[in-house]
Amino acid sequence: MTMLSSTRRIPHQLLAGPLVGLLRSTYSRLISSFREEKDTFGSILVPADKLWGAQTQRSLQNFDIGGECEQMPEPIIRAFGVLKKCSAKVNMEYGLDPSIGKAIMQAAQEVADGQLNDHFPLVIWQTGSGTQSNMNANEVIANRAAEILGKKRGEKFVHPNDHVNRSQSSNDTFPTVMHIAAAVETNSRFIPSLKQLHASLDAKTIEFKDIIKIGRTHTQDATPLTLGQEFSGYSTQVFYGIERVKNTLPHIYQLAQGGTAVGTGLNTKKGFDVKIAAAVAEETNLPFVTAQNKFEALAAHDAFVETSGALNTVATSLMKIGNDIRLLGSGPRCGLGELILPENEPGSSIMPGKVNPTQCEALTMVCAQVMGNHVAITVGGSNGHFELNVYKPMIASNLLRSLRLLADASISFEKNCVRGIQANRQRISKLLHESLMLVTSLNPKIGYDNAAAVAKKAHREGTTLKDAALSLGVLSSQEFDELVVPNKMIGPSD
Amino acid sequence: MTMLSSTRRIPHQLLAGPLVGLLRSTYSRLISSFREEKDTFGSILVPADKLWGAQTQRSLQNFDIGGECEQMPEPIIRAFGVLKKCSAKVNMEYGLDPSIGKAIMQAAQEVADGQLNDHFPLVIWQTGSGTQSNMNANEVIANRAAEILGKKRGEKFVHPNDHVNRSQSSNDTFPTVMHIAAAVETNSRFIPSLKQLHASLDAKTIEFKDIIKIGRTHTQDATPLTLGQEFSGYSTQVFYGIERVKNTLPHIYQLAQGGTAVGTGLNTKKGFDVKIAAAVAEETNLPFVTAQNKFEALAAHDAFVETSGALNTVATSLMKIGNDIRLLGSGPRCGLGELILPENEPGSSIMPGKVNPTQCEALTMVCAQVMGNHVAITVGGSNGHFELNVYKPMIASNLLRSLRLLADASISFEKNCVRGIQANRQRISKLLHESLMLVTSLNPKIGYDNAAAVAKKAHREGTTLKDAALSLGVLSSQEFDELVVPNKMIGPSD
Amino acid sequence: MTMLSSTRRIPHQLLAGPLVGLLRSTYSRLISSFREEKDTFGSILVPADKLWGAQTQRSLQNFDIGGECEQMPEPIIRAFGVLKKCSAKVNMEYGLDPSIGKAIMQAAQEVADGQLNDHFPLVIWQTGSGTQSNMNANEVIANRAAEILGKKRGEKFVHPNDHVNRSQSSNDTFPTVMHIAAAVETNSRFIPSLKQLHASLDAKTIEFKDIIKIGRTHTQDATPLTLGQEFSGYSTQVFYGIERVKNTLPHIYQLAQGGTAVGTGLNTKKGFDVKIAAAVAEETNLPFVTAQNKFEALAAHDAFVETSGALNTVATSLMKIGNDIRLLGSGPRCGLGELILPENEPGSSIMPGKVNPTQCEALTMVCAQVMGNHVAITVGGSNGHFELNVYKPMIASNLLRSLRLLADASISFEKNCVRGIQANRQRISKLLHESLMLVTSLNPKIGYDNAAAVAKKAHREGTTLKDAALSLGVLSSQEFDELVVPNKMIGPSD
Amino acid sequence: MTMLSSTRRIPHQLLAGPLVGLLRSTYSRLISSFREEKDTFGSILVPADKLWGAQTQRSLQNFDIGGECEQMPEPIIRAFGVLKKCSAKVNMEYGLDPSIGKAIMQAAQEVADGQLNDHFPLVIWQTGSGTQSNMNANEVIANRAAEILGKKRGEKFVHPNDHVNRSQSSNDTFPTVMHIAAAVETNSRFIPSLKQLHASLDAKTIEFKDIIKIGRTHTQDATPLTLGQEFSGYSTQVFYGIERVKNTLPHIYQLAQGGTAVGTGLNTKKGFDVKIAAAVAEETNLPFVTAQNKFEALAAHDAFVETSGALNTVATSLMKIGNDIRLLGSGPRCGLGELILPENEPGSSIMPGKVNPTQCEALTMVCAQVMGNHVAITVGGSNGHFELNVYKPMIASNLLRSLRLLADASISFEKNCVRGIQANRQRISKLLHESLMLVTSLNPKIGYDNAAAVAKKAHREGTTLKDAALSLGVLSSQEFDELVVPNKMIGPSD
Repeated sequence: MTMLSSTRRIPHQLLAGPLVGLLRSTYSRLISSFREEKDTFGSILVPADKLWGAQTQRSLQNFDIGGECEQMPEPIIRAFGVLKKCSAKVNMEYGLDPSIGKAIMQAAQEVADGQLNDHFPLVIWQTGSGTQSNMNANEVIANRAAEILGKKRGEKFVHPNDHVNRSQSSNDTFPTVMHIAAAVETNSRFIPSLKQLHASLDAKTIEFKDIIKIGRTHTQDATPLTLGQEFSGYSTQVFYGIERVKNTLPHIYQLAQGGTAVGTGLNTKKGFDVKIAAAVAEETNLPFVTAQNKFEALAAHDAFVETSGALNTVATSLMKIGNDIRLLGSGPRCGLGELILPENEPGSSIMPGKVNPTQCEALTMVCAQVMGNHVAITVGGSNGHFELNVYKPMIASNLLRSLRLLADASISFEKNCVRGIQANRQRISKLLHESLMLVTSLNPKIGYDNAAAVAKKAHREGTTLKDAALSLGVLSSQEFDELVVPNKMIGPSD
Repeated sequence: MTMLSSTRRIPHQLLAGPLVGLLRSTYSRLISSFREEKDTFGSILVPADKLWGAQTQRSLQNFDIGGECEQMPEPIIRAFGVLKKCSAKVNMEYGLDPSIGKAIMQAAQEVADGQLNDHFPLVIWQTGSGTQSNMNANEVIANRAAEILGKKRGEKFVHPNDHVNRSQSSNDTFPTVMHIAAAVETNSRFIPSLKQLHASLDAKTIEFKDIIKIGRTHTQDATPLTLGQEFSGYSTQVFYGIERVKNTLPHIYQLAQGGTAVGTGLNTKKGFDVKIAAAVAEETNLPFVTAQNKFEALAAHDAFVETSGALNTVATSLMKIGNDIRLLGSGPRCGLGELILPENEPGSSIMPGKVNPTQCEALTMVCAQVMGNHVAITVGGSNGHFELNVYKPMIASNLLRSLRLLADASISFEKNCVRGIQANRQRISKLLHESLMLVTSLNPKIGYDNAAAVAKKAHREGTTLKDAALSLGVLSSQEFDELVVPNKMIGPSD
Repeated sequence: MTMLSSTRRIPHQLLAGPLVGLLRSTYSRLISSFREEKDTFGSILVPADKLWGAQTQRSLQNFDIGGECEQMPEPIIRAFGVLKKCSAKVNMEYGLDPSIGKAIMQAAQEVADGQLNDHFPLVIWQTGSGTQSNMNANEVIANRAAEILGKKRGEKFVHPNDHVNRSQSSNDTFPTVMHIAAAVETNSRFIPSLKQLHASLDAKTIEFKDIIKIGRTHTQDATPLTLGQEFSGYSTQVFYGIERVKNTLPHIYQLAQGGTAVGTGLNTKKGFDVKIAAAVAEETNLPFVTAQNKFEALAAHDAFVETSGALNTVATSLMKIGNDIRLLGSGPRCGLGELILPENEPGSSIMPGKVNPTQCEALTMVCAQVMGNHVAITVGGSNGHFELNVYKPMIASNLLRSLRLLADASISFEKNCVRGIQANRQRISKLLHESLMLVTSLNPKIGYDNAAAVAKKAHREGTTLKDAALSLGVLSSQEFDELVVPNKMIGPSD
Repeated sequence: MTMLSSTRRIPHQLLAGPLVGLLRSTYSRLISSFREEKDTFGSILVPADKLWGAQTQRSLQNFDIGGECEQMPEPIIRAFGVLKKCSAKVNMEYGLDPSIGKAIMQAAQEVADGQLNDHFPLVIWQTGSGTQSNMNANEVIANRAAEILGKKRGEKFVHPNDHVNRSQSSNDTFPTVMHIAAAVETNSRFIPSLKQLHASLDAKTIEFKDIIKIGRTHTQDATPLTLGQEFSGYSTQVFYGIERVKNTLPHIYQLAQGGTAVGTGLNTKKGFDVKIAAAVAEETNLPFVTAQNKFEALAAHDAFVETSGALNTVATSLMKIGNDIRLLGSGPRCGLGELILPENEPGSSIMPGKVNPTQCEALTMVCAQVMGNHVAITVGGSNGHFELNVYKPMIASNLLRSLRLLADASISFEKNCVRGIQANRQRISKLLHESLMLVTSLNPKIGYDNAAAVAKKAHREGTTLKDAALSLGVLSSQEFDELVVPNKMIGPSD
């Protein structure tokens, strides 16, 4: 990374243009750590220990935006490895020299394995087609493949465009890696994490099934339910959330590859698109297919907007759950105090002994971020022009970030909070029996208006419901005791 | 509506409280146009010609927010009619007096038919559970049913709570009418409208299938495609959009009814929830079922956030389509000018003869609104507390508005724009043959670097590609003519 | 309104085109309620009792989107009245026939007064420049002015374009009325309403200044503060909110008028722009000036995005306040219960005697809506093209709606909630003295680690802090009593 | 960083709890690279080469969310250095041992200088108060100060809470560093960058002041303006954008420091808050003051929501500018082609010779991101509870990211695009003279309706305006030539 930073500080004039000759003699020691790479714009100096080529270097200099934190997400880099490997494989069927093809496949596998991450320095904030990252992949794989074949970097024995990018365009590869990365992250990270959270909430549903507590609507005391029923709501939200995201995957599984520049498939052979989707499916073990309409697949990223919409729904669910749990766990003495949350760390730098619902806080912050990411994706998705949407890297990075954050935060929340939640049975029972809303079970017997009078009297006078009911003479002591029974209030009657 | 406004201006003291007696004698003429209604808070004056009762009147006075434009959307009112009719029907099975039940059913049908809309004056900005609108429905139906049975308004012969709202709570009825209204609007308005737009775009796909034009990526000239292919992208977007919304309906078809106050179903009988969902399904001809988990159904509106996410995706699609069409139709002389859009009205109050893509503008404004509505829904959906989300009327009104606006704008756009779009064949052909990007078809023959040199030379010197290619000696005239053939560039090769 | 609806249902063919002659004889009775109006597109039938002309009628038929609820907001209509009056006045200085000018001024005043609202039927979802609403104003004023002068409607004795719209374009009038409407609504409605809320919160700050209560951070018990201090936070938020919105007004006070079609001022005379801004300033008593740069003023609505951003901040403030108050008022027996909120209506249709924080709910729903409106405005604001942003009606309607809703909801919240809030002193005192976080005042004496041990011991064993402290031997009983004094904990020490 | 990763993989049981003793003997070699640190939760192993302590280590293990890319932004870390230095300085005035105080100041200066960045490993997704990052700062500075004084790490000779955090709470320090970081980034990075962009656009305004071109409204041909006028709109947008952000700084300059836990200032001495703000002001050369109301300053982040709203406005401005420039530069042969944008890199991996408006793309992607960040901030800002908003790290990181991205993208766009934009004078002139909208200058002479007839005839017949005008006989050839003069159409007439 030090290399990268210092590279960036070398002035533009030093790395390109007519001064190169002069500089070479003057700064020979410096120059020895660079090599020359060429593209259609001319030659440019590239750090000798890096595999990237001229176009990557140009992007590095032209897009000094945001620093290293803003680099293209790793799942995109790895997906490029998968795609370029599959492309070489399919291209060999269409006549690519097998020795070159195999070298490309080997080099691409290294990219897919994350071994060459250091050779992908570009940030998200580049051309909106992701062309420069596609060229970064082409250049790194071409140079690495050349090395595998005993050739030197920069000589284009394996050509980034003609060999590695053969039958491809950035305009179809970048959407393809977006979809591969999203599908892989969803299946390998997001869904398992949410399932873990769901299972944990579900276990609480059972653990707490016999604890009757006061319900709260409008944040006000309401009729009772069991703590298990309350958690069943959370568990259901997470379960549906997983379903929601899964329901959007069929569009993610459609790959743009084969559309090339504008969706027509120019410079590919018939069948290339189907074969490459099949190859990617085999490589990833996911049901990728070729996109039914390549024009849509390049020009729009509705599939990402859709999946992001599902993640946005998951974020609203998790924010509700996180909020409830921190409020139910509020206290220890001046809050609701129905739940006892695990203590993981000192809570305050000034208030000794304070323990805070920090996992709820991390989770709900993540949810707010996901809602923001969703708006960014929506704006990007709505701004395509003609044959190409050019907000691709921004859209991709936000979706991948949302997937990662929701997944990691769900695991953290599950492991460090949900799993260890205990019911404060004493507190729950105390609150339940003080509540005035048990009066609701009198409705069918004495009518809504009378029941209201009972509740209001008890509230005004600070007495029990029973005292108020008897004093109003609306029913007998025995009738009251038969009707106002919390554990008969947690479901429909027979 | 004049009545309503004047009602609002009558000071609070005049309409309720101990002064009523005094005022009655003093302002007998005024008073004669009001009647007294009671609830658990006491009595209150209500306009004599209105069917609503005390709680509606109270809400009217307590929530003077936004004016008449902010009234609860009509589909919610009508859905209350459907629900209350079905409730009475099922309640009769559970012992509701049949004469009262039938009168309720008849009155509720009038609500469902929109005949009593004037009796629903409440705005969205009321209690977040929609309780006041539920009571509005209960009160109107109770008074109307009483009239049907020959009784007077306000006497509660048919009781709003004990009869009309029997076995129900606002907390389950309001989410239920939200789902009924959303499902009905989606099926009867949104989907047919989008289908009409899809069919029209699809027809253009076929109509334009032989018109080869220049493609544009990054807004720059790119390789060619047919105008039909370009429209096929739009058509696919709309097709998928319909699918996306449909995919979210299963959660919308789950009804909260039977959960009553907190999801437990207190004060209902076993089976009530299933029967009522069946009755609603029969009444609406839509596959409603009872919600699997009533706690989730009251406390969260993830289903609405999800559907709104799908509508948000449709909005991004339509914004892309609207933008493309206005840019392709830009001109008439200084723009791209490939499309000729229908002229529907004078375009400018100062520039005579100007014709503008006004349908695109209305459509894309609607799309921006839908994106905003979606954020409002998301924020509301994330803010539930405990057993009840209290952003219900806001969430409902935004989703219904999005459905209506997208549907109406799609029809308007289809009827007044898409249907009449003509291709400007002369202009399309001229641009196509001037483009430099036809050079792409040389790649497989002469390689990317040589092809780039050809294009750059032609661009620099303002010549044709062919001149540049021959002058560079990279291929013969005959080879050029065989390779650079637009109608061979619109698909993969054999 | 019935008229309008039925008008809309008359088929297009009936109202325009060659069939008119035939139809006239056939349906003479029907036709007698229409008159013919003309524009550059030809003649069209218009309801005889309406003042609008051909272009308005065309828009009505071409943009059947959303129904009457979606009509252009009234403040825009009235602002058109103001502007057209001022334009006529200034145009007379530049040679407009005074008799026509005066008639226009009189007719425009009627529009400004809201007397002709029924003649403005167009919806927001029209052309994005608002041209059709500008023409609606021009047509209504022209016809009305003609009547004033004893001429007939439709004869264009006063011409909508040449007289009423003289020296103007929709492209400068619509942004001008947007700014007039926003400035008027901000000053006459929004700021006074927020000030009323601020004053009420401020009064509570003083009323509650001596009530010491437990603080809560992370929703957990923390060190004490006074209830007055807590309310001072709310009061400060509202105060700053007013400042924030005011700070954005200088850009709102810049009027586009005089830019005409593209910002150059073509077809105006020098000085027209300055004079018209002065006339509007005089008419409205607000410090309007001519925009420094008319190109910016037509092509962008950054000023609206900016003001909407300030309103969005106000919405976050009010949501925080609304949330806190409902949680502090939660209960009555199973919540925090520190505040007693006014009871305005029965809270539940099933739970008798329930009282809910409904004003908080209406307020926070409004806040969510404003956040959504802000995103719609942002998307619209970012989508301008070249010399004209064409999301004007959408942007305008959202800002005006946000202003109205925040203003009305603030008044409703103030009047029906804040004003009547009482402190539950008994409950507040009980919670305060149970809290463990009073331990914080021991830090300076015994150090953070010891203080933490005291708090943890008390929590674990359910004892008081004092018992725990003495039992740990970290300080004497007297020292404890001197240090742990809530009313010494509500500010810095000397 | 390898260290960090492996640290994370060490199971929780290995690093804390009763097993430590056993493990120490078993894995002595491993253990030698760790040291023991303690907090009120007990002891825990920390990497020996790191300065952080127990609470940081706990956070690292409890919040494994998002990976290294999600670390707390550097400006926050540096601001902690500034604040802790100033706190020590002021604390010495209130009795802090000067030798300890000075060591803290020295260590804090190292943090402020970015020398200890590697010792701040925590991610954004931690406790919502930022407590753990505050403790990270306290621990690192305490250990480093101890070293300076010749003591060992972990011995708490300088105590993180009692010395470094003296008179402070996370609840006031974190908002304080948020404000310091935002103010510094705004002043040192954002404003200079935007000014550079503004200056460059302004230069173009002058450079292009004599180039008359066709205007475009609704994307359709309109009346002419100069290219300089067009750029003056962009320049004005950026100028106002800088103003907008500056206008929000007064709230950012208010520091929460001195509020401690809940805003009361408990455990500080009178005057501490004012002195610390003064010290920070002196240290940073920015006009910081103590917050007028500390309760607001802890419980809400309205100031950040407000500034983010201003940045959101800047984003809409830059998106408009970026969009216009790419469309005006579209082509080279099939677009508008009025601008020639600098060529910085090969544009396509498949289309040779293609040059794309990549800087516009990076810029507009950044704008979409900023809009998304703004929503995340808004949601976080609206979700405070009681005395503390617990979305602080999320809010801070989004605002800092928006500031950085807008600043960097503005510089990149200026340097690599705006600066090098050339007008394609030939193309501009050709389009201007073909346009039909020059007809507008005939309005004052022949009236709107006649002028419309001329334009429509010319359009229909493909002729010039003059031919059409003469053929319609509405004015003479000489009159036409006198009226239709583009360079008389770019401003009001005398």
